[in-house]
Order: sequence, then structure tokens, then C-alpha cells
Amino acid sequence: MAAPLSRRDLEFLLYEWLDVEELTTRERFREHSRETFDAVLDLSEDLATKLFEPVNKLGDQNEPYVGDDGKVVLPDEVESGINEYVKAGLMAGSFDESLGGMQLPTVVNRASSAWFQAANAAMSSYAFLTAGNANLLAEYGSDEQIDTWVRPMVEGRFFGTMCLSEPQAGSSLADITTKAEPQADGTYRITGTKMWISAGDHELSENIVHLVLAKAPGGGPGVKGISLFVVPKYLADGTRNDVALVGLNHKMGNRATTNTLLNFGDGTHSPTTESGAVGYLVGEEHRGLSYMFKMMNEARIGVGFLATSLGYAGYQASLEYAKVRTQGRPVDQKDPTSKPVPIIEHADVKRMLLAQKSYVEGALALGLYCSKLVDIQQTSAGDDNARAGLLLDVLTPIAKSWPSQWCLEANSLAIQVHGGYGYTKEFDVEQYYRDNRLNPIHEGAHGIHGLDLLGRKVVMSGGAGLTLLTDTIGDTVERSSADPATAELGVQLRTAVDHLVATTATAWSTGDPAVALANATAYLEAAGHIVIAWMWLEQLLAVGDRTGDFYDGKRAAAQYFFRYELPKTRTQLDLVAALDRTTLDTDPAWF
Amino acid sequence: MAAPLSRRDLEFLLYEWLDVEELTTRERFREHSRETFDAVLDLSEDLATKLFEPVNKLGDQNEPYVGDDGKVVLPDEVESGINEYVKAGLMAGSFDESLGGMQLPTVVNRASSAWFQAANAAMSSYAFLTAGNANLLAEYGSDEQIDTWVRPMVEGRFFGTMCLSEPQAGSSLADITTKAEPQADGTYRITGTKMWISAGDHELSENIVHLVLAKAPGGGPGVKGISLFVVPKYLADGTRNDVALVGLNHKMGNRATTNTLLNFGDGTHSPTTESGAVGYLVGEEHRGLSYMFKMMNEARIGVGFLATSLGYAGYQASLEYAKVRTQGRPVDQKDPTSKPVPIIEHADVKRMLLAQKSYVEGALALGLYCSKLVDIQQTSAGDDNARAGLLLDVLTPIAKSWPSQWCLEANSLAIQVHGGYGYTKEFDVEQYYRDNRLNPIHEGAHGIHGLDLLGRKVVMSGGAGLTLLTDTIGDTVERSSADPATAELGVQLRTAVDHLVATTATAWSTGDPAVALANATAYLEAAGHIVIAWMWLEQLLAVGDRTGDFYDGKRAAAQYFFRYELPKTRTQLDLVAALDRTTLDTDPAWF
Repeated sequence: MAAPLSRRDLEFLLYEWLDVEELTTRERFREHSRETFDAVLDLSEDLATKLFEPVNKLGDQNEPYVGDDGKVVLPDEVESGINEYVKAGLMAGSFDESLGGMQLPTVVNRASSAWFQAANAAMSSYAFLTAGNANLLAEYGSDEQIDTWVRPMVEGRFFGTMCLSEPQAGSSLADITTKAEPQADGTYRITGTKMWISAGDHELSENIVHLVLAKAPGGGPGVKGISLFVVPKYLADGTRNDVALVGLNHKMGNRATTNTLLNFGDGTHSPTTESGAVGYLVGEEHRGLSYMFKMMNEARIGVGFLATSLGYAGYQASLEYAKVRTQGRPVDQKDPTSKPVPIIEHADVKRMLLAQKSYVEGALALGLYCSKLVDIQQTSAGDDNARAGLLLDVLTPIAKSWPSQWCLEANSLAIQVHGGYGYTKEFDVEQYYRDNRLNPIHEGAHGIHGLDLLGRKVVMSGGAGLTLLTDTIGDTVERSSADPATAELGVQLRTAVDHLVATTATAWSTGDPAVALANATAYLEAAGHIVIAWMWLEQLLAVGDRTGDFYDGKRAAAQYFFRYELPKTRTQLDLVAALDRTTLDTDPAWF
Repeated sequence: MAAPLSRRDLEFLLYEWLDVEELTTRERFREHSRETFDAVLDLSEDLATKLFEPVNKLGDQNEPYVGDDGKVVLPDEVESGINEYVKAGLMAGSFDESLGGMQLPTVVNRASSAWFQAANAAMSSYAFLTAGNANLLAEYGSDEQIDTWVRPMVEGRFFGTMCLSEPQAGSSLADITTKAEPQADGTYRITGTKMWISAGDHELSENIVHLVLAKAPGGGPGVKGISLFVVPKYLADGTRNDVALVGLNHKMGNRATTNTLLNFGDGTHSPTTESGAVGYLVGEEHRGLSYMFKMMNEARIGVGFLATSLGYAGYQASLEYAKVRTQGRPVDQKDPTSKPVPIIEHADVKRMLLAQKSYVEGALALGLYCSKLVDIQQTSAGDDNARAGLLLDVLTPIAKSWPSQWCLEANSLAIQVHGGYGYTKEFDVEQYYRDNRLNPIHEGAHGIHGLDLLGRKVVMSGGAGLTLLTDTIGDTVERSSADPATAELGVQLRTAVDHLVATTATAWSTGDPAVALANATAYLEAAGHIVIAWMWLEQLLAVGDRTGDFYDGKRAAAQYFFRYELPKTRTQLDLVAALDRTTLDTDPAWF
């Protein structure tokens, strides 16, 4: 079985391109070195391929269910694999040493995680939700909350969730109705129903720490009235809290991640005589959504990595298949007595492999680039800190949505390369495709990121975000001009960026947000393609004049992306710039 | 639950656009009338929505299996639904009255079938494979073969299959190894293994009539050595023939259609002392593939309908959902105390609905247009006959591949409209998406149709096929010029057609088929979009100046397709015309 990721590619991206070793010169990471990074990657690859990948199909085919005792049942192998992950200390990856963490750079920690996401997307999510939860609480929680909830999560004894959506409110969090009533002891009683809660219930950990958005009295309507609470499954003294599993959602994919409907405070497990689950306020009242954005932004990059990793696993599988499966002959070879060739020799199969390679390696580059921005932001001050933060803000909707769209497309191509076999459960690619279809939906549906990018990120602070992005891409273009092998691509990229900038201005030229945002999804997708083209030009600059198959592969994939993909942005941006009103003017009654 | 098809749309396409009633002036269809057509459509809608649709999920969740007695077990409801379909006489749809058929126009029969495909894709396939098989045998079989095998299929007592692929040979039929040994009694003994045989075994019918490609002695190598045989599961005297079910393939979707690996002549069910399954030659030796193309071409249009119907069902479901699900507010309405709106009012949701509508209604139009060409061909002679046949030849790769790609995309959008709910088994759209992913794979993988279109169909007879297509589209453009509402779209369409023609010439300008066909898939996809744009312009001409929501919906979808979709062909055709060698020049070692 093909490895679900390429270690060679990871090393290229981390060391030959992003110069991750440079981070070890910074105070926060001075205990680290290439050796400690490699040790984490070795361990991750080893555990992921030995304990996660072999049970990927098992976890898919044996969906979690609720046993007679009301407890969630997952296959033993899923449980034991996750236990080994915890025992290896990997949950502690990027956390501060003071919290018991390894204080790894985020970029290295993400590379480690990608192994598990590629090997078994559904199993990987428990750990990454827990890390996101703990990261939020480590930043905004009180010392007591950190001791009580964060430390056990870093140890892997407690797992975490994020509870935002409700049955009637997903994309529109302003409309959540879960309520928080303050008590005399400073705690709150939480009542309400939360939907789509991944890892919302299971027996994998001693406790589950829910981070819950709810409305406390006195907040305004809408998102301003939202506060954030820690609501554990078990209170610190071991008493069961009133968080009840109403049911599991049965999904097309990602099955080994339990996905739950939870009732808070319906009396099922009431620990006190007052009704409501016990909750502890995080930070200040009515500022909950701003805290939650810490976890949401991290989760968005994480979803991008999940999509990328699934795309990568499919690419690797279809590549292996294409090398060994023989079928047909070259189009200019008509002799039927000649031997059939491996399908990798057919132009259209090479197209499908180059497309996948350009998507998954481009997306991985973007994810790691964003992760390094987190490290730079965390280890710098002043302008450097602000620039890294702003660039990360602008790139986040793309880092989430682009892989969710195109690495899903990669999975579809991986099926296609396999022919009929790809449609069967004998091979892995159909599961990757089903698993990956989740990613354009959660952590902000695809269209929401278009509104975020065009409606907020590129216009905020007088357009500073867009200017920073285009200046940063401009630096890459500038560096590309010295070498004829990259200069032409740099010119193409600059043209595309100029088109994006001009289109942004035109979109907002009427001042009417309905008009500006009518085609925000097309804008998002075009911006994503331009950013990925930038990632490919960056990689080409790192390749330089090095020789060998690996580097030639990077050159071919970059060429593919610039010739087959980047031109698509022209028609998309033309559409946005035309201020096309087709969608606005279509009356719902016409459907 | 939403109806999986729109009767209103079908009636528009059949009567207001294609003027199917005109066919009743032709000798073959003179017993028919709008009333008989409507009666068939009424019956089909009724049976499909009452007996097929309600068991769609059941058939998906209860995959066929092989029981202890070696027989295939399907859910009772699947069996009884198919029995009712047969009892209603629908299997007889387009067959000659002399064979016990209803002698319906193909276009009406396809519209009838679409109800079953949309209601339950997997259940529908048994009937449509049987009809394709019987059609082939009715044309090329002997009188005895017609009496023995075709009549029981038209009655629905026997079902049929097509046995082409083998484990090592799918796209490349030249490499099949199944053998046919002639016997003294004029029969043959067939030995070999056939893979991916849909409906290859089951207990739904008294008998299963396999049409098997095999190599008889004396044929040349490659496709010239292929002959076609009838190989029944049971011989005419009721003896079991040596066709053994080796196993069922377990698929991502389309589960209620059994998909099988069959051994012919392995001795499991040997009816005679000689080894080999008993087979009866169809027509002449070594001409088998040319006969099989009759069934393959019919099946390709049928797969296009299957993809279209699944896309249509998803569109209808997501449209219904979008009307009732409330979420958020218009982008220019910030007051969080205002009521959330139905999501159909959001621009991006309207985009997803318009996209689906333009794909599925455009694809349905193309499928029905092609079906009417079959009727014209069948009921005309001379030039009319030749033109209909040639146009059908050119359109077939598009009618198969375009819906398989874009109605699958429609299903993805249907999931997206549903948000998280769409990813669960509580709703139907995730199944449509899984079911539909088959269609770019079978009956010629997607890339094969690019080679067929650019390598054969548009260049055959000195380019007569392409010229006929462009002239036919030119007629539509001409008719569009009278009305300002359509004239501008006509100009756009003519520009795109001119681009296609020029690109075809450029692709072949070097004379090297490897170069010409290097980007045949991009050519196929661009040609498909141009053909669907033509279908939309045709529909607009049928709409004329009629008023009402239905017609305004057609106008909006046509506008969507011309503004959002047709421009994509420019970059695709530019790529083809550039004779881009990226795929050709990529060394497999570089991956």
C-alpha cells in the first residue's frame, strides 16, 4: 500500500522551501533542531501508517453506535490507535512546555498531524479538536480553567469539542438559542441543543470538555449576545454533568468521528437540583464569538489540512495503481499484438495525476505556509507580528476552502484513474472521496468563505489585507524574474494578481454589498487559484536548478498548474467584475 | 418529498420544444397520439414515485449478497417493484408491435424511463440493460434467437446483460481473452471471466440473457477477432448453463444493481461433458464489436439519462429544502432581530440552484434531442436518415460524458445546499452523489469519450460530423437572431462554435495523433458546454415571449449558463489549440 503522504515532499517543503530550521534560532523554539523535528515526523509516519491507516476501512464500515448502556461504541482498533497516539505524547505537540507540551513550531506540528489525517481522517479528528479547544482555553481561560481542563487535554486524558451549531442555526450563529443563566456561585446553567458536534460523545477519554456558545442575559441580540462556556461531560469532582447524547448523525463518510446531537440541561444527567448543565464562563460575558474565532481559525486551517491530506492519500494510491495497471496502447500505436502499457503512460492518465499532484502539493504548501505564519506571529513583535497576523487573516478562507474543493476533486480523479475498481470498497479511494465531501460543508460552508474574503478580509483596514497579500506575491514574482525558467510564470502570476486587485475594486464600486458579494464564491475560487499558483512559483524558486526526478516532478506540476488551471481565473474574475446580477435578479418563484 | 423529475419540464421539452406529436404523423407511430404518450408518462410517474422512490434508500442500505444456496438476495421490495414495472408492460416500450412491444417513439420511452432512473437509479438498470440487449438481438439476431430470447425479454420474463469487460481488459477490449470454440452442432463453447457485469446474476427473472464478447478462432488479433454470443444462464430447455457467479462487487453507490464477476465455462454448472458455457453466435463471426456498438451507443445515451435523472432528483430535493430552510439574513440586512429568511433568498444559494437547473435541464434536453434523432433515423430514409445518424454519432460521446460530469456536480451542489444535513443519510442527496459517481466510469471512461470525439467523430468522413453539428447549431443561431432577447446569446454561441471548429483544425494540424489528442478531454468538455449552451438557446426559442414563472425560470437558467458556464470553454479550447505538451512530456518517473 502506498504511503498516504510523501515524506520526501514534506522535507522539501519544510526544509528546502520554508527553511523551518530558521525557527530554531527563535527563543521559543531554541530547544528544537532538525533532529527533533525529524524525530517527530518519524514517529508520526510510523504510528500513522501502522495504527491509523490499517483501520481506516474498519472505522468506515463499523459506524459508531449507541449501546444499550447509552454509551457510544467504536471499534476496539480505533480506540487503541488513538490511545497509542496519546501515549506517544503527540497531543502535546505545539503546546507550551509550561503546560506539559513539546513547544514544537506549529508548522512542524501540522506536518506531524497531516500523517494521521492522511492515514485515517476520521480517527485524526479527535486529537485535533482537542488541541484546538486546549489552545483556545490556554489563551483565554483563567489559570484555574487551564489547570483543570487544559492540562488534562494536553496529556490526552480529556478530549475537547467545539459546540457552535444548533439545529436551526449553523451558518448564522446570531440565531443560536442556547441559554446561560448566571448562578450565585459564579457558574452558569446552560440549556439548549447543539447539532453537528464532532467527537461530542465517546468513551475514548476520561472526560470531554465542551466549549459552548450560549446567550447570557444582558447581551444584545445577534452575535453580540454570545458568551463562551466550558461545559464538561464530567465536573471536576467526577459528577456527571447534564450533557445528554440525543443521537448520532449517520454520515456519508468520516464515520469514525462520532457526530452528535447534544442536549445541554435537559435533566437527563442533572448533577444539581437546578436545571441546566453546569458551565464556566471563559473570559468576559458577551465576547464569546471573538474567543471562539481563535479556535475557528485554527480549525479552518485544520480542515484545509484534512482535505489536503485526503487528497494526498488518494493521489498516492492512484499513482501506485497507474504504475502497475496495464491497459491499452499509445494512441499512435495500433498494433494489437504489442503489449499493453501501464496506464501511467497515457496522456489523459498523466493529466489526472498532474492535476492531483498540483492540487495536493499546492494545498500542502499553502497549509504549511500558513502554519509558519502562526509561528512567526507567535515569535515576533511589532510590524512582523502584525504582518504575519494580517496575512494569515486574508489567507485563512482560502486555506480552508481551496483544498476542500480541489483536493476533493483530486479524490474524484483518483477514483477515475482506478476505473471500475475505484468505485468499489476493495480500494481506498472511494472512502477518501466520501470522507472529503464533508470539508466544503463544516467550519464555514464554502459560500461563507467567499463572503468572508470579499466582504471582509480584502477590504478591512482600507484594503491593507489585500495590499499585503499582493505585495507578498509581488516579492515572489520579483525573485522569479532572474531565471528564464520562472520569469514567464511570474509575469502570468502578476497579471492574474492585477486582475484580482482591479476586480476587487470593481466589485465594490457601487457601494452596494448585495451587488459586490453576488459572485463572492467565484471571487473566492479565483483568489484561491491565484494563491496556489503563487505557492507553485514559490516551490519552483526553491527547486532552482536542482536535478533529479523529484525536482522535475515539481517543475511539471507547476507547469500544469500555470497552463491548465490559472487561466480559469480570467473568466471567474470577468464574471465578478461584470457585477453580474443573474443570481440577485432570479425570483425564487421561477425555480 | 419532492418529485424526482418535473412533469412540467418534461412536457415543455417534449411538446413545446421537440414537437413530439409530429412523430405520430409517421407510419411507425401512427397508432400513437399525445394521449397515449401522456398515459405512459402518467403511468411511469405513478409507478416510479410509488414503487421505486420509496425503496431507494432501502436498496442502498441493504446491499445484495449471495445466500447459502449461492443465489443473490435482494430486498423483497426491490423485487416486487421491478415485478410491477414488468407487469405494467413498460419493458415493451419502444419495441415493435410484432415483438409484443408498444412501438413508442424512443424519445417518449426515454422520458418514461427517466422517471424510474430518477426515482431509483439502481433498480432502473435491470430494465434498461434488458431493453438494450433485446434491441441489439432484435436487429442482429436470427429469427430463432429473436423468438427464443428477445420475446421473453420484451415480456419481461427474461432479463439481459452486456458482458464486455474482463479483469484485465476494460477500456481496451482488444485485449479480452474469453474464448469461443465452435462445435459441430453450430453452437460454441465459451470460456473466460467477465468483470463489472451489471445485473449479471439475480433471481428477478426466469432467465438471464448474457451478450458476451469472445474470441473465436481465425479472427485477427485485437478487436477484429471479437465475436458476439448469446450465452443464457439457462438453456432454452431449462438446463443450467455453465455461467458461474464468482462474486459481487461492493460499490460506493448503485448498490441495488448487482455487479458481478462471472466465470463462463469453469465447470461449476456444466450442462454437457464438453467444457465451456453454451453460446450462440450473433450474426457473423469476428464482427461482434460492431454489433455491440448498437447496444453500447444506446447504453451511452442511457448512462447520460441516468446521470441526468440523478442530477434532476438532487436538484428537486435541494430546491424543496432551500424553500423551507431558514438561515441568516440578506447581506445588506444587519438587524439580528429580523426574521431569518429561507435560504433560497441568498445569492449563493440561488447560484447553486441555477447551476443545478442549467445542468440538469440542459442535459435532459440533450438526451431527449438525441432520442428524437433515433426516432427520425428509424422513420426516415436517404439524407434525413443519414443526417440523423451522423448527428447522433457526433453527439453520443457528449450525451454520455457531459451529464456524467455536470449532473454529478449538480449532486454535489445539492449536498451543499443542504449543509450538514446533506452529508447525512437522513436526506437523499448523499446517495444521489454516490450513485452518480459511477457514470463517468462505465460505458466508456470519461477520457475515452474525448478520444472518441476528437479522434474519430469530428474528423470522420472528412469532418462531415463536425460540419453537420455546427450547421445544425448554426440554424438555431440563425433563428435566434430575430429576437433581441436571444440574438445576443446566439452571437456568443456562434463565437464559441467558431472557436471549436478552429481548435479542431489546429489540434490536427501536426498530423500527429499523440499531439492532437493530448488534451482530448478538455476538448470533449468544451464541446459539451457548447452543445448544452445550444440546448439552452433552443429552449429559449421554444419559450418565445410566453409569460409565467416557468418560462422566466427557463430564461434565468439560460442566462446563467451563458454567463457563468459558456465562457469556460475559451480557456479549455485555448489549451487544446496551444498543442500543449505538458502531459506528453511528463516522464512517469517524475511522479
